[in-house]
Amino acid sequence: MSGEMAAPLHTTIRSATRELVIGSDRPFCIIGERLNPTGRRIFQDQIKAGDLSAVGRDVKAQVEGGADVLDINMGVPLVDEAELLAKVITMVQGLTDLPICIDSSVVEALEAGLSVYQGRALVNSITAEDERLEQVLPLVKKYDAAVVALPNDVDEIPMEAEKRLLLVEKIVRVATQEYGIAIEDIVIDPLAMPIGADQATGLSTLETMRGIRERWGMNMTCGASNVSFGMPGRHELNGAWLAMAMTAGLSSAIMDARTPSVVSAVRAADLLLGHDEWGMAWISRARAAQAAQKAAEKAAAEAALAATAEPAAT
Amino acid sequence: MSGEMAAPLHTTIRSATRELVIGSDRPFCIIGERLNPTGRRIFQDQIKAGDLSAVGRDVKAQVEGGADVLDINMGVPLVDEAELLAKVITMVQGLTDLPICIDSSVVEALEAGLSVYQGRALVNSITAEDERLEQVLPLVKKYDAAVVALPNDVDEIPMEAEKRLLLVEKIVRVATQEYGIAIEDIVIDPLAMPIGADQATGLSTLETMRGIRERWGMNMTCGASNVSFGMPGRHELNGAWLAMAMTAGLSSAIMDARTPSVVSAVRAADLLLGHDEWGMAWISRARAAQAAQKAAEKAAAEAALAATAEPAAT
Repeated sequence: MSGEMAAPLHTTIRSATRELVIGSDRPFCIIGERLNPTGRRIFQDQIKAGDLSAVGRDVKAQVEGGADVLDINMGVPLVDEAELLAKVITMVQGLTDLPICIDSSVVEALEAGLSVYQGRALVNSITAEDERLEQVLPLVKKYDAAVVALPNDVDEIPMEAEKRLLLVEKIVRVATQEYGIAIEDIVIDPLAMPIGADQATGLSTLETMRGIRERWGMNMTCGASNVSFGMPGRHELNGAWLAMAMTAGLSSAIMDARTPSVVSAVRAADLLLGHDEWGMAWISRARAAQAAQKAAEKAAAEAALAATAEPAAT
Repeated sequence: MSGEMAAPLHTTIRSATRELVIGSDRPFCIIGERLNPTGRRIFQDQIKAGDLSAVGRDVKAQVEGGADVLDINMGVPLVDEAELLAKVITMVQGLTDLPICIDSSVVEALEAGLSVYQGRALVNSITAEDERLEQVLPLVKKYDAAVVALPNDVDEIPMEAEKRLLLVEKIVRVATQEYGIAIEDIVIDPLAMPIGADQATGLSTLETMRGIRERWGMNMTCGASNVSFGMPGRHELNGAWLAMAMTAGLSSAIMDARTPSVVSAVRAADLLLGHDEWGMAWISRARAAQAAQKAAEKAAAEAALAATAEPAAT
């Protein structure tokens, strides 16, 4: 099998000052997903009132959690998404040097974001639909970006691995031949669906991933939490899923870096797949966790002592 | 690839009253490993003093933790292992109806255990060494047992997948052709080594597993904690490892069922691989965990209330 397998492709993205190379033979790329008002009513209201203070907190939390890239989506109903997205991207680039994944279903918003972005962005996303390809790929080329691509077309999200691979083939053909985009700048999201709705989706998605890895060696990403939608124990499911998918070539995920158990699962898989020499990253992470726990225990003990020393005024 | 892949083989083991079928297309088989005095000084001293009370506690903990099979090893220096192993197997069969994995490096102990065992046991283990094959396989045949087999020989534990597969081939040939043992009654332990000592061991072991799964469809097991030996964060590593190995065909592991996070990882992988219809096992597990947490919180709150009501007598 290894004789026929394509070499892993490398996708390079950049902020103004930092470069990140994504590859299935390298440490997993965590794309922090929190900078997104979808499903966050308070954040939406703040944005409408011109209050972007949550952005700073979210950036800080994702960076501290171990994100390698930040996904920014500013889709809020009744708000000028293009203007807002450009503004937030500029703001975030002042807060962190992590590269950014510019995420929108609105083509004008993607262009506004790309036009202000300092570096080489990842654009999220295209599908195999002709209209989307025609609208977004010229921007990807113009701004020399990389792009996330989903193997669904206007008719359906196919469940069978073979049909998804045909759509990947179409995306690759159109992007490389018609728009001159390098294959290594296309990152496939193989569309993991909720396992609670269809218990076969895990296997067919792993098969899709293996097919993409073996045939093209392309990078892949996924929404880490899709697979557990509607199920209890979502963090455990998401962590197991990512570790499993990494054996099939998944090289990044859009995920909330604030969940230590899911971040640990991908860092463990990095070590187990030979992408963490001497285990240095794993050991550093374990040391930091131990230090944080000791500090928390010390603080709790001091608080308990203080409570004993000063009787409550009753 | 799926066109060339062997069908999954099924290994059937039994206690006096319960049957368990192991297969890579079925829920993962957790072989509880705690009934083993290796590295447990207190347990060793108790055994030497004739005190087997720890056995009952260990059986209870493994069963409550979700073990499907219990591994029993009674290797204690200066103790008659054959007599002790037979005694403990009889004792454990009075405590639980889970099937047993009879674990010893001493051939006489394996025979003593098999001779008292009620049901169809799993014997742990043989290697590809001629002497071990000649000593143990007649017992496996005589007592109609299944057997765990390690692909190492007298010279070495080979690191390359290809060499390990050659040793698996030898084991299969000798066991089936010379001793008339069915291939589905051989469970391969592909020998995951500590990742801290060799960062390539994970990949080569996964490759070995895929080779065994694709070529023969045989069941596989491993010592879940070997891979993390010497590393911090062992539970996270073990859980990620098992979920990853399950994508390559691992169908059981010898592991401590008392660690909920590792048990959760394999049950999550069961669901994600389509071995948990409607997610019923996963949902039941999550409900039980929630109920246990609520009970613990209630007990803690009641204890805190009681402490407030009765001032300490100083």
